[in-house]
Amino acid sequence: MGNLKLTSSNGNNRRTSVHVDGVTIGRDFVVIAGPCSVESETQTLITAQKVKEAGANILRGGAFKPRTSPYDFQGLGLQGLKILQKAKRETGLPVVTEVTDPRDVSWVCEYVDMVQIGTRNMQNFSLLKEVGKTDKPVLLKRGMNSTLKEWLNCAEYILAEGNPNVILCERGIRTFETYTRNTLDLSIVPSAKELSHLPVFVDPSHGTGRLSLIESMSLAAMAAGADGVMIEVHHNPSEALCDKDQAMPPDMFAGLMKKLQVLGTCMVQWNQERECQGLVRPQ
Amino acid sequence: MGNLKLTSSNGNNRRTSVHVDGVTIGRDFVVIAGPCSVESETQTLITAQKVKEAGANILRGGAFKPRTSPYDFQGLGLQGLKILQKAKRETGLPVVTEVTDPRDVSWVCEYVDMVQIGTRNMQNFSLLKEVGKTDKPVLLKRGMNSTLKEWLNCAEYILAEGNPNVILCERGIRTFETYTRNTLDLSIVPSAKELSHLPVFVDPSHGTGRLSLIESMSLAAMAAGADGVMIEVHHNPSEALCDKDQAMPPDMFAGLMKKLQVLGTCMVQWNQERECQGLVRPQ
Amino acid sequence: MGNLKLTSSNGNNRRTSVHVDGVTIGRDFVVIAGPCSVESETQTLITAQKVKEAGANILRGGAFKPRTSPYDFQGLGLQGLKILQKAKRETGLPVVTEVTDPRDVSWVCEYVDMVQIGTRNMQNFSLLKEVGKTDKPVLLKRGMNSTLKEWLNCAEYILAEGNPNVILCERGIRTFETYTRNTLDLSIVPSAKELSHLPVFVDPSHGTGRLSLIESMSLAAMAAGADGVMIEVHHNPSEALCDKDQAMPPDMFAGLMKKLQVLGTCMVQWNQERECQGLVRPQ
Amino acid sequence: MGNLKLTSSNGNNRRTSVHVDGVTIGRDFVVIAGPCSVESETQTLITAQKVKEAGANILRGGAFKPRTSPYDFQGLGLQGLKILQKAKRETGLPVVTEVTDPRDVSWVCEYVDMVQIGTRNMQNFSLLKEVGKTDKPVLLKRGMNSTLKEWLNCAEYILAEGNPNVILCERGIRTFETYTRNTLDLSIVPSAKELSHLPVFVDPSHGTGRLSLIESMSLAAMAAGADGVMIEVHHNPSEALCDKDQAMPPDMFAGLMKKLQVLGTCMVQWNQERECQGLVRPQ
Repeated sequence: MGNLKLTSSNGNNRRTSVHVDGVTIGRDFVVIAGPCSVESETQTLITAQKVKEAGANILRGGAFKPRTSPYDFQGLGLQGLKILQKAKRETGLPVVTEVTDPRDVSWVCEYVDMVQIGTRNMQNFSLLKEVGKTDKPVLLKRGMNSTLKEWLNCAEYILAEGNPNVILCERGIRTFETYTRNTLDLSIVPSAKELSHLPVFVDPSHGTGRLSLIESMSLAAMAAGADGVMIEVHHNPSEALCDKDQAMPPDMFAGLMKKLQVLGTCMVQWNQERECQGLVRPQ
Repeated sequence: MGNLKLTSSNGNNRRTSVHVDGVTIGRDFVVIAGPCSVESETQTLITAQKVKEAGANILRGGAFKPRTSPYDFQGLGLQGLKILQKAKRETGLPVVTEVTDPRDVSWVCEYVDMVQIGTRNMQNFSLLKEVGKTDKPVLLKRGMNSTLKEWLNCAEYILAEGNPNVILCERGIRTFETYTRNTLDLSIVPSAKELSHLPVFVDPSHGTGRLSLIESMSLAAMAAGADGVMIEVHHNPSEALCDKDQAMPPDMFAGLMKKLQVLGTCMVQWNQERECQGLVRPQ
Repeated sequence: MGNLKLTSSNGNNRRTSVHVDGVTIGRDFVVIAGPCSVESETQTLITAQKVKEAGANILRGGAFKPRTSPYDFQGLGLQGLKILQKAKRETGLPVVTEVTDPRDVSWVCEYVDMVQIGTRNMQNFSLLKEVGKTDKPVLLKRGMNSTLKEWLNCAEYILAEGNPNVILCERGIRTFETYTRNTLDLSIVPSAKELSHLPVFVDPSHGTGRLSLIESMSLAAMAAGADGVMIEVHHNPSEALCDKDQAMPPDMFAGLMKKLQVLGTCMVQWNQERECQGLVRPQ
Repeated sequence: MGNLKLTSSNGNNRRTSVHVDGVTIGRDFVVIAGPCSVESETQTLITAQKVKEAGANILRGGAFKPRTSPYDFQGLGLQGLKILQKAKRETGLPVVTEVTDPRDVSWVCEYVDMVQIGTRNMQNFSLLKEVGKTDKPVLLKRGMNSTLKEWLNCAEYILAEGNPNVILCERGIRTFETYTRNTLDLSIVPSAKELSHLPVFVDPSHGTGRLSLIESMSLAAMAAGADGVMIEVHHNPSEALCDKDQAMPPDMFAGLMKKLQVLGTCMVQWNQERECQGLVRPQ
């Protein structure tokens, strides 16, 4: 189904690394954190500082929010991008934001270090081609009912335009379960790595939609072989303008970062054992 | 879930009619027919002539094709629109084509009588806003895993920009069934009519993906209360560049049109009985 | 997937008829009607009389109810079967009831003319084998997430034990839509008839779970080629012990029966046209 | 939805332990391993010995196999149970097998230490009640499209009959993904533990259907907080009579066991940190 000549791993173990202003995705485990949407300068700067202190590598923040209803908060747009820029200056963290319209791609790229394609736009082929014409890293979220092959074909749209810097990001699929907002599909992590050389991220915040599940799913994502996680953090979740049920307060995020470090050490030990045995990583 | 102040039926029986260059959708049963994609002038003109003779009301034909793989046929673009225009001049049939990029909306509208938003773009909010700024009729397909409420919120995006001419179109949802390409959800027809005053169409070609099922599903759509169906017809299905398994040859289409007419008479009889009994239509 | 040697149509147009105490399923359109569950003698006898007067062919009524919670009403059991028997004596209508346990099959068959396998038990292979050892007609409901092939394999389990009297019954599948209780898949009707010679029924009551949708879905089922429908009727829906949102009052049921008759006449006309043209039914 | 008075955690952190002939589920991480089905004495005894050596705690093996087609291998029945008994005598491992018919429950319980309810029988309420009347531990698999609440209601059926020894087991749900056989839903592990005090297992063999994914999903299951995993191991996968694509050879299983031990140590470290901080486990 579809020609994946650029996206496919072609059956070998070659892995791609993507460089996001000094952070290398695809080598060490990377944590992206920050608010769902940029709501104000204060909110963004405080949260950015908190996630930086806890050890996050990249700052996230939405300036253009695709919302189910036309009457919901749609993001601050350009103003939000300027706030992200300021947060970067203050913390040194590279920033990533979602882009939703092909007409916005070129100028949004001036403000951020990585652009995100959201789940609803996974098959927005005009948008994919437009980010493919830049050389910005692209975080390509999986469509909420997309198969792996469809997702990889979307990566192929970007690579085919000349931009090799694509990171796949699982964010939960729609299932019949109602307890969680979506069903986080962690098996897609090793599956995507079998078929493709691209790095694979996991977003447990949207993937579960429940604060109480994010920690265990982040740890499970790392254990499953993900190259990183993206966590929604808000300095004051009860006041968040969107997705407040899944916004993690900074202290809980700091606790999660510590556990990820412990697990990281454990995984180094696995890899050493594997090397001792002359085994390669099963990707 | 979402404010549907413009899309909602508000519990009364008011129905909206949409006028497409002389054809009124929402009053009599309307049939849109034509090729999946405009492949050539010859193919389009022959097919247009055939569906006109059989009694179709509007001609369809894709000039921009959203395809899973970047390497598949993506449509003829402007050239395709010019062919559609010529087919309209020759047959008198109004034409509808899909638009996929907000940058294309204004100029594509110069060539066609109705624009279609495809299933993958149902929640492409930039595109919805752009067609909302025109006064062209918009055929809004349901996302392949969209709920009714999400779909109606997308109609609301268009109406909120000032364009009241929206027709909803069910085109099959993704299910676990593999015998059919999608699962045509006919219960969405009376459901959408309960919640909204907008006309509701059905696309049994994409909805089933199997030629042998299209006739019975078209008849069932009419019996379920749909305002019309959209059928893919190709003068030579075995040579179709896309979706050849669901392309209907002209003679089969003519047979279907006759059955729809018989059923239409039958439904008039139902409505008369209902009026005799002083009943209103259960929408 | 699976050997369907007994269930398959083997590509020809042979259709099977199943005889239910004088009613032939697979020839004329058959309507099964009655309460979701047998609640009392009065409720059952009144409802039976009403559906008989309106023209129903078979009476339904549940004596063993598979319920999500162990604390919900589980049916009257043997007492319910005796009430069904009495209703049959008074109305002359054959009766059908669900059986859920292989240990109950032989004795339940003494009381009814047809047994039903419910959606949750479609792949209860012990139960399928047990009804396969009788010669009672079996109404085999489709599992709520079953594919067509899985369903036909379940019919094969029954036929392989020696009982050829199987009727398939679509009752709605689970999808992401929340407006309806299930999504009635009418395209499975012509699909099942392509692959199998068995009759195909539709249950729009469970299939939609909304009273206001049952009439249009019944008509659409007939137009799609179904061999009959099964409708939940209760003489006083507001007091029904289960599924009260989908229980149809007798007068609405009588109105539906009239429309089905009109549509039936229309379909005879289609078939005559087809015969005039020398065409066979596309099954 | 449903009264879960016995199954619910009632919001507190009380956890239930289930004792399976000397193995305590719900305390340390437990590994169940063995063949999909008992095919022969040789195959079962060799595999049992291998998984015992690698550190497995309980032996699995199917004697009654629910198969999609009536013509597929249905298991050895009583002969299979006797082979399992012999394997237990030789290795000391407790044994678990699936039961599919309420008529089999009492005598099957004579041969095994735990019975399994398979995914197709999750809502086979007669079967649930029958195992509820024993005091055998019951491994209750989640239905392949079941919600968490429906699953817990099935546990409630067992507990309501008097048997408190229920272990929940996630085995993958049906989604649109075709790369994997099912989609393993690891977020159900912490979710089930929020709502219920029962132990939660994970079956990554059926959950993925691909040998190459089982290791990473087992590790992820442990990181997500599962009480154990169930792995299909076959001493010679290429000759397995069922599910050969997911059967793990013994040496790969031994490697997995080592990694689980490393991860187990890591998780002890997490818990110690948590205790140092005065935090309780977020279940």
